[in-house]
Amino acid sequence: MSDHKPLILVTNDDGITARGIAFLVECMQEIGHVVVVAPNSPQSGMGHAITISTPLRLYPTTIFPELPAYECSGTPADCVKLGKHHVLKDRAPDLVVSGVNHGSNTAISVLYSGTMSAAIEAAIEGIPAIGFSLGDFSREPDFSHIRAHVLSITRNVLERGMPKGVALNVNFPIKAAEPLKGIKICRQANAKWQEIFDERRDPHGRRYFWLDGEFVNNDAGTDTDEYALAQNYTSIVPCQFDLTAYKVMDEMERWNL
Amino acid sequence: MSDHKPLILVTNDDGITARGIAFLVECMQEIGHVVVVAPNSPQSGMGHAITISTPLRLYPTTIFPELPAYECSGTPADCVKLGKHHVLKDRAPDLVVSGVNHGSNTAISVLYSGTMSAAIEAAIEGIPAIGFSLGDFSREPDFSHIRAHVLSITRNVLERGMPKGVALNVNFPIKAAEPLKGIKICRQANAKWQEIFDERRDPHGRRYFWLDGEFVNNDAGTDTDEYALAQNYTSIVPCQFDLTAYKVMDEMERWNL
Repeated sequence: MSDHKPLILVTNDDGITARGIAFLVECMQEIGHVVVVAPNSPQSGMGHAITISTPLRLYPTTIFPELPAYECSGTPADCVKLGKHHVLKDRAPDLVVSGVNHGSNTAISVLYSGTMSAAIEAAIEGIPAIGFSLGDFSREPDFSHIRAHVLSITRNVLERGMPKGVALNVNFPIKAAEPLKGIKICRQANAKWQEIFDERRDPHGRRYFWLDGEFVNNDAGTDTDEYALAQNYTSIVPCQFDLTAYKVMDEMERWNL
Repeated sequence: MSDHKPLILVTNDDGITARGIAFLVECMQEIGHVVVVAPNSPQSGMGHAITISTPLRLYPTTIFPELPAYECSGTPADCVKLGKHHVLKDRAPDLVVSGVNHGSNTAISVLYSGTMSAAIEAAIEGIPAIGFSLGDFSREPDFSHIRAHVLSITRNVLERGMPKGVALNVNFPIKAAEPLKGIKICRQANAKWQEIFDERRDPHGRRYFWLDGEFVNNDAGTDTDEYALAQNYTSIVPCQFDLTAYKVMDEMERWNL
């Protein structure tokens, strides 16, 4: 690795055998040296979970025969931590990419998303990072329409660097008859899941629940990720990990505490 | 429940048998009607994880004999969802409180914190919410010094309501010889964990890793949660779930995408 190609750490939350990470690895090989550290099982909905109460396992895998690749028993955030501090301890990666997720991570889903937690974990470590998600939940999605955008967004980040404390949340629309219209810089839509619990009985007569929900968008803005995707654009939301609601601090100074 | 007392849902991330939730329940009983829905096992570090790939269990428990209380197989965020949409489906709670966590949730820890994910989940549902954490990791912490602050902060939130899209992250210092100096409204410190992986071999000769770390505060500000706690104040950080880095959006419009 004596050339000037960037070193790119690839992870995801659907697990190392998912089609989305295979596609992302293929794209990244056009740009740099690729190392894969990804979960050994699906981790959807894991949010920013980390593994602190049980030990972590990390094994080399031949699933990407030409590449250094490792499967990890932990969450996407664990994969980034192990990738940076163990696998790549002698040279920090120039970029961390996560995905391509099978399913969108727009609006409030950014909080539940393992894909984005990996990107945000990298941003915490000061490494430029992008989470990629496609609005297609199937196991065999068609990724062909997103390749040019994956490459162009990645090259922009590598050339320009990322503002401190920020990671990109990139969402692509499902493949349509028309080609993608372009890329929009967006804010996170004020849209959320309306939960429904599907109550059932197991064969032993005991109750259990499946969490299910309906996505409800009450945001009429035309500058949101949801709006861009509905118009067949790729959306990019720059995401920060400082959660402080600065605008509220002054108001709270007047509380009677 | 025909009086005008508020309905308060209590949860945590250390599990329903932890001392911290027993203390919080006791405090809340001075203020309102209390319902408990909490994890049946420790969920520290679970971040904003939700359970979507396995079914959830929810059982009534007699651990709080005078109260409606349920133990749940899921994460803190799951507990809030099940609490609101199933247990309290006929009357939404007026407040959700989470904790008191055994250990602090300052600075970047807010992202990894199950305690705060429960509070933020409630804020997403439009319910005022507070996560309480004490900087004492022991199993039997002394909570006596924080009771007045827990009550005063909770009463303020109930009287004033919370700004939309915000939940409070409250941290208390470990009990010192001197009484607490007061309460400070703070921003999230720019401080993080410097990861260390402790590599070991199991009895079968296979490698495993414990995630460990050292907390490093590179933030010299005197308006942070870390600073307030170090001065023996209780810190309150108002936290939002819109992660959009608005300041970066204009700059990104000039990218060559």
